[in-house]
Amino acid sequence: MTPEQTGIAVPPITPQEYGVGARFTLSVYDSDYVSIILGALGEADADGLVVETNDISTFVGGTEQRVAGFLRDVIAAAAARGAHLSASILLSRGCPGELQCELPPGATALAASPIALAATGVRARAHWSLYPLLDAGQAGGDHMAAIAAAVDHARETGLYAGSDHYATRLDGDLADVLETAANAWILVGRTVQHVTTHLTVSINSPSVVAG
Amino acid sequence: MTPEQTGIAVPPITPQEYGVGARFTLSVYDSDYVSIILGALGEADADGLVVETNDISTFVGGTEQRVAGFLRDVIAAAAARGAHLSASILLSRGCPGELQCELPPGATALAASPIALAATGVRARAHWSLYPLLDAGQAGGDHMAAIAAAVDHARETGLYAGSDHYATRLDGDLADVLETAANAWILVGRTVQHVTTHLTVSINSPSVVAG
Repeated sequence: MTPEQTGIAVPPITPQEYGVGARFTLSVYDSDYVSIILGALGEADADGLVVETNDISTFVGGTEQRVAGFLRDVIAAAAARGAHLSASILLSRGCPGELQCELPPGATALAASPIALAATGVRARAHWSLYPLLDAGQAGGDHMAAIAAAVDHARETGLYAGSDHYATRLDGDLADVLETAANAWILVGRTVQHVTTHLTVSINSPSVVAG
Repeated sequence: MTPEQTGIAVPPITPQEYGVGARFTLSVYDSDYVSIILGALGEADADGLVVETNDISTFVGGTEQRVAGFLRDVIAAAAARGAHLSASILLSRGCPGELQCELPPGATALAASPIALAATGVRARAHWSLYPLLDAGQAGGDHMAAIAAAVDHARETGLYAGSDHYATRLDGDLADVLETAANAWILVGRTVQHVTTHLTVSINSPSVVAG
């Protein structure tokens, strides 16, 4: 029975209840990495976000727009120091908790608005993978069709720069790279509850070293 | 009609045809990163593997055992230089090609044997996520049940060190961390064709810096 049918108001699910957030590792290829990473994390606006840093990565929870904005700010601040860096980013929505999806009763795929990020002036190249985590027996098409639609969207934005094994290559302003990946994640999330996406972003690379 | 029914021999699918491989980015937090990364890549035995390095990451294709062994060797060699490093690793099987799964006709989930790696003496801490990429309408259970079974396996091996948002924490010898993740990926792959897993491995971390 829907809320409309029962007449009982159901509080909206918050981004935190829906498990909207990111986990990322910022790697700075420089012996001065501690001050660069801590400086970048310290400068970014964490208002309205849950930010938890440990020895492997940093978790950021909040709305799609605020989470992506935080990633943009932290990575751009680190990049401004000039060192070569890479960021390994996981975005997830639709599955809070750890080993089980601890969603409020009745929750299914929850739409969110596309995000928009201001340009940074920092060129980023990225490998990007998108995972619509369907269950067998569920309605909603096949996972590769959802991925193909997202890549078509990346072509339209001009960020698409080729396909390598297991990943799509994006190339452009850091803000546009993050925006393209996040908006595909949000778009697939309109019909699939649990969607994750992984990005490896490379900035200030001096060469073709895999670093 | 199966090969048995037709009497026509079908050549076995090779690991390359089945898309077995890894994409990884090795990040060294040291100004001498170029020689450390190139040295580690150069020392590892690439016999029987396809290895392609570009500006963002390195692709390795081959059998599950050889791919995992290559990752072990490269990361352990870099770690031996003493610098703090992280490795962002994607393992994939069951979906060769880029935007479409270009499998030979009739291919479905293909079993592989578990791998075994010799200990390295290098302690690794990792965040690990496993993605069984089911299609709606397909047989084979739900994706969270497959993940829970894999985490149970990690508990049995003693590598399980807790659950953070979106990731399971593994802690132990680098070889055991890679083996645990790879064997869960192989185990789920017995019933699900397209399975990926992502690991962020941290080694020689001096502190609780998110690096």
